[in-house]
Amino acid sequence: MVGTDNPVLAVLCGEKHPPDMEPIEQLATVRYTRAEGLADALRGADVLFVYDFLSTAVPDAWPAADRLRWLHIASAGVDPVMFPALRDSDVVLTNSRGVFDESIAEYVLAVVLAFAKDLPRSIRLQDERTWLHRETERISGRSALVVGTGPIGRAIARLLRAAGLRVSGAGRTARADDPDFGTVHASSQLTRHLPDADFVVAVAPLTEQTKGMFDAETFAAMKQGARLINVGRGELVVTEDLVEALRAGQLAGAALDVFETEPLPQSSPLWTMENVLVSAHMSGDFVGWRNALVAVFVDNFLRWREGRPLRNVVDKRLGYVPSNG
Amino acid sequence: MVGTDNPVLAVLCGEKHPPDMEPIEQLATVRYTRAEGLADALRGADVLFVYDFLSTAVPDAWPAADRLRWLHIASAGVDPVMFPALRDSDVVLTNSRGVFDESIAEYVLAVVLAFAKDLPRSIRLQDERTWLHRETERISGRSALVVGTGPIGRAIARLLRAAGLRVSGAGRTARADDPDFGTVHASSQLTRHLPDADFVVAVAPLTEQTKGMFDAETFAAMKQGARLINVGRGELVVTEDLVEALRAGQLAGAALDVFETEPLPQSSPLWTMENVLVSAHMSGDFVGWRNALVAVFVDNFLRWREGRPLRNVVDKRLGYVPSNG
Repeated sequence: MVGTDNPVLAVLCGEKHPPDMEPIEQLATVRYTRAEGLADALRGADVLFVYDFLSTAVPDAWPAADRLRWLHIASAGVDPVMFPALRDSDVVLTNSRGVFDESIAEYVLAVVLAFAKDLPRSIRLQDERTWLHRETERISGRSALVVGTGPIGRAIARLLRAAGLRVSGAGRTARADDPDFGTVHASSQLTRHLPDADFVVAVAPLTEQTKGMFDAETFAAMKQGARLINVGRGELVVTEDLVEALRAGQLAGAALDVFETEPLPQSSPLWTMENVLVSAHMSGDFVGWRNALVAVFVDNFLRWREGRPLRNVVDKRLGYVPSNG
Repeated sequence: MVGTDNPVLAVLCGEKHPPDMEPIEQLATVRYTRAEGLADALRGADVLFVYDFLSTAVPDAWPAADRLRWLHIASAGVDPVMFPALRDSDVVLTNSRGVFDESIAEYVLAVVLAFAKDLPRSIRLQDERTWLHRETERISGRSALVVGTGPIGRAIARLLRAAGLRVSGAGRTARADDPDFGTVHASSQLTRHLPDADFVVAVAPLTEQTKGMFDAETFAAMKQGARLINVGRGELVVTEDLVEALRAGQLAGAALDVFETEPLPQSSPLWTMENVLVSAHMSGDFVGWRNALVAVFVDNFLRWREGRPLRNVVDKRLGYVPSNG
């Protein structure tokens, strides 16, 4: 894949333009656009940079993409652009794998510890000026099952193990002696391994296979009193079933950074459940993340211009970047 | 030290008796008492087990201790019993060193991560059903200075380092190549090393030397935007100075599990400061801690009965159990 002399780059922006684009503006005609202008921007464009990575505008504008060769999305999950016309096209798809690994791992450890040490209740008691001693949980020796064995799942596994938890993984293929997970169970046999886990972390890519995988049946198979942490995609979880499992006491808690509908609707029962931690799809978004995202794209753009292999090429049949190993 | 045939053990209890005392009740006459009966219980007693470890009743009852040889306190800090008459006596003092190390370390990591990931605000936003994306901090590479190099400080250092922080310690004697801390600075030169630390953890024993060591001068020497975590004793910190440093923005936050007055008075400004995390002197109190505390005493009691050396003997001049190394 070799770039043209004066390529046209369309950039789908949200409220803000991406930072640090100067190196690219010297090498390409850059068309910054919001969703409503995307079709116009795509006409004649060689490359599309989906900076507004939660936008659902790409499928509608797709018929205008008359010479597109490469689409890069500023996120790890590529589900917003996995529509059939792109999947069946020759357009290469790359993502921003790697940027969020360590920050999401820190978020997961943060909520594991927040549950164990009952921090949400401490904060609510503090707001009522109430001094109430409680006994809290250890995390050392507790078990975590990380569902999703991509680089984010791996970073989570490493950090949770470093903090003293027993960790295993669930992925497409079962295997032993994984450097990060130790044991990886087959996701197809997930319910067999759920009863062992005190914390279940959902970080699988959203695909036809994983959509709704955390449903009533899954929750029934979990250890009573276990907690679910979702840092993947809201659609991995059947929210109604989760609410029911929490209300019934089958699950002791859930930390949810992603939701079937975002922003989470005002009417959602999740807001007021004391054993639920809601955050605004931000688990990976450390100070500097936007610069880091653009740096991944700039690096890939220079590769594309020079005809070198792109990084983070998504296998469009799988819906994610396959691991090397 | 060899026990008598039918020793008398006084046990100072709070609201509850200690659990798991059956092995001792077979070997000694056990007098369980609340504070008001302590003097009577001490008369003729060989051993005092201060199970209500925050009680201040021991000095007043002390004149009744006519044959006491050993006092064990069910805590790591021995400051409630470091009154002159005990210090100058031949009574051996032991503590419950070791029980709280790992649980307090987990609490410290929990609040480090809660600050970095802005969890208190997420919880308060959730209570208002408000979806608000923010960028948050990484902990990897941030620096922590642990003031106090006893076993709890060591466990904190190990866990923070495992989670990716850079760690150093401050203790009585400066040294390099410490197995847990790497570098240990001399506490006497603390202000020199404070500017490097994003998180300062107070876990020193409360002694005449450490009382009020975290005062206006200390806070002024800290990095602007640093955070203080106090899991030692409230009296290590001059609360007024801390409130002022937080209000001035010199410190970005404080997590306080211990206070000059406990329970924290309703009138304290700390309750309503959004950058302060208040908890009820519970950082070490994991589910099962009371049993673990009694197990330490039972082990020591059997040693005492058999004339073997006691564990966790406090150096009464120092005010803590000196390290082996």
